Amino acid sequence: MGLESWVSSANGHDTFPIQNLPYGVFKPAGHQQARCGIAIGDYIIDMHKLSSEGLFTGLAGEASKALTDETLNRFMALSNNAASAIRLALSQALRIGSQHKNALTRALVPMTDVAMQMPCHIGDYTDFYSSIHHATSVGKLFRPENPLLSNYKWIPIAYHGRASSIYLSGTQVTRPKGQVSVDSNQPPLLKPTERLDYEVELGVFIGENVSPFDSVTMTHAEQHAFGVCMLNDWSARDIQAWEYQPLGPFLSKNFMSSISPWIISSEALRPFRTAMQREAQDKPTMDYLFCEQNEQHGALDIQMECYLSTAQMRQNKQPAKKLSQTSFKHSFWTIAQMITHHTVNGCGLTPGDLLGSGTQSGASPDEAGSLLELTAGGKQQITISDAEKRTFLQDGDEIELRGFCQNESGLRIGLGSVINRIIPNHSPQQPKATDEHFSL
Amino acid sequence: MGLESWVSSANGHDTFPIQNLPYGVFKPAGHQQARCGIAIGDYIIDMHKLSSEGLFTGLAGEASKALTDETLNRFMALSNNAASAIRLALSQALRIGSQHKNALTRALVPMTDVAMQMPCHIGDYTDFYSSIHHATSVGKLFRPENPLLSNYKWIPIAYHGRASSIYLSGTQVTRPKGQVSVDSNQPPLLKPTERLDYEVELGVFIGENVSPFDSVTMTHAEQHAFGVCMLNDWSARDIQAWEYQPLGPFLSKNFMSSISPWIISSEALRPFRTAMQREAQDKPTMDYLFCEQNEQHGALDIQMECYLSTAQMRQNKQPAKKLSQTSFKHSFWTIAQMITHHTVNGCGLTPGDLLGSGTQSGASPDEAGSLLELTAGGKQQITISDAEKRTFLQDGDEIELRGFCQNESGLRIGLGSVINRIIPNHSPQQPKATDEHFSL
Repeated sequence: MGLESWVSSANGHDTFPIQNLPYGVFKPAGHQQARCGIAIGDYIIDMHKLSSEGLFTGLAGEASKALTDETLNRFMALSNNAASAIRLALSQALRIGSQHKNALTRALVPMTDVAMQMPCHIGDYTDFYSSIHHATSVGKLFRPENPLLSNYKWIPIAYHGRASSIYLSGTQVTRPKGQVSVDSNQPPLLKPTERLDYEVELGVFIGENVSPFDSVTMTHAEQHAFGVCMLNDWSARDIQAWEYQPLGPFLSKNFMSSISPWIISSEALRPFRTAMQREAQDKPTMDYLFCEQNEQHGALDIQMECYLSTAQMRQNKQPAKKLSQTSFKHSFWTIAQMITHHTVNGCGLTPGDLLGSGTQSGASPDEAGSLLELTAGGKQQITISDAEKRTFLQDGDEIELRGFCQNESGLRIGLGSVINRIIPNHSPQQPKATDEHFSL
Repeated sequence: MGLESWVSSANGHDTFPIQNLPYGVFKPAGHQQARCGIAIGDYIIDMHKLSSEGLFTGLAGEASKALTDETLNRFMALSNNAASAIRLALSQALRIGSQHKNALTRALVPMTDVAMQMPCHIGDYTDFYSSIHHATSVGKLFRPENPLLSNYKWIPIAYHGRASSIYLSGTQVTRPKGQVSVDSNQPPLLKPTERLDYEVELGVFIGENVSPFDSVTMTHAEQHAFGVCMLNDWSARDIQAWEYQPLGPFLSKNFMSSISPWIISSEALRPFRTAMQREAQDKPTMDYLFCEQNEQHGALDIQMECYLSTAQMRQNKQPAKKLSQTSFKHSFWTIAQMITHHTVNGCGLTPGDLLGSGTQSGASPDEAGSLLELTAGGKQQITISDAEKRTFLQDGDEIELRGFCQNESGLRIGLGSVINRIIPNHSPQQPKATDEHFSL
């Protein structure tokens, strides 16, 4: 299986082998100060502690210095070349036979001894709508006669979300209240949502800055993609249906979006690049969104899975129920196209900005990335266990989104997971971590 | 006219009399470090310099200390009581006969000697749609048969904008490029917008934090409104028309919004409070958005004017053409209702967050706050001067939005203005200040 590490738990690890080396921020048990870290096997390299060993020079040294901050922002702002340099240096230092084994060993922290933190300050959050299967099946619910709007195949549709409402995996989801129109002949009601849903998304973090009015071309777009995580864009469908015309979703989304704590670098994803999956009738692409390399290698085969466990299932020690699985390779737009389109008007991008891919659904109905689709808008219950069915989510339900890549030669790296449990609305409180989940 | 100040230019000043005392951030000529300042007449009180005089104690002292930062965020995060305390202390120190005249004099900087800066870090930007006249007249253009959607009178419609694209008055507006659908039977084109427009809006800055899942009630909402500015939400109508379905405006808006540099405190606005202006048929209001005090005093009579000057007019030394004037008192929703609605689902608010009011238009067509409305969607040219007409904005055009309040007893305070000039798209560059405008 290629590279072997002296961190033995990394060898054959299904999430954090030496080929991954993702970035995150953590607090060691009993410490107040957050640290940047890199995951390897069952451990985290404490980059603050490692910096005192003075192992790295040049670009890797610059990267190492930026990784002594309490967030990843300064590191993300460096070029992806700097990220490559520190990744290569660490990869070499982690291999069997490395002369730096002792220095790195002193900086290793067991994952079980840390609380993961938000990886960076997110300045702005944009959510795309890149799955044509999702857009079509949701469109069918709202506009049966015209499911896919005429702009869809030309323009990467997106809208702005709320950056301050993005929380880390483990944060409880308080069921939001909002205006709901139950009967169009009656006034709307204010009440807790009865149609609480998840959305399976990929999160893309911006690295190197795009200056305002510096539009990025397709050939340079990927340089600004620092890495990816799993993203759950929680949605209240009844609130959304009433509020979204004419300016789009607002309170139905901004109570919470949640992310997995580790950012998988663009470089680690390279072995899982693949050709765009468009059908012949879905072409052509406008010039500014087209480049041959993107067509051939711009898609990413990231498997995305969604699991639900209910309070009753946990009590009965039943495993979580898998609701769906799909791949990001089916996205109608690639990350490079999202970045190029986002900046074509002169909009700048800042290190740490987050792009959501939009809900990812496969072509088959059971590959859908939301309950809205899996239940045909709440009209068809799905079976969770012998005893339970669902249309939308109930209090106590827990949703876990997992991501991983695996190629034909057997190489597998994981994105880890984002997992959140729903609590009732009647207990106003700050979101806080469910203790048992400082999930991967 | 009531209070007289020993700063003689303040007496009778139409923008910054002693009754105003708005907050801003500036750099004195030749200085790199930004300072918080308070405007009085033709001067700014350098709050960093003043703090060394040690004049204030208690809440005013705490406020004074927070005002030594390079942005207003820490000061905004204090309660409005702290803002009141420093405002009262400064008002007293600025009156004729004050014992603190010498200390304050040492901290005064002429406005002509400074470059204004962004007043605070804006974490999130939300844009409302609070003018029913605007919503109706724009609705007529897009949906003649159904101009005002059924949710409008129930729910304060809003969507998220992009915080990092908010620039200060004086910044040039680069005409944005984008996808435009000229002929629905042909592919869209990528080109500079031909329908560049302004939007006359009030900006509302959030002061004291609203914690996530702490919904604010109507009786407490105004405590979180720190103050207001003028806001121009630049818009590319052709890009907007093609991209906005189904998730709302995106690139048609996020190339730039611009704000006036001074924040008028909620307290300074108190004399200009007035009753809500709704028609009988526009009621009732849902319980969570209703309180009697808001109905009686929740609206604000802020006059908002829009001026256009073209390159030719400036060359000919012609004064700018006034395009429209209206009052924020016609807004269908008050600031308190916007804040209450924004947090009803558990969404938190952060000091420095910006809420846009949405385009403010009066009931009469010539009171409309955008060219989209004034030209009936670009179908009717308006006359700017003997020689020039416009549907949408041309390169070299300069838009100035001015705001002020004046009550029956003759008291007048100003919001100052936001002024920006349009430059062509073919010169990609960073936005920079037009030197002649560090406008008030």
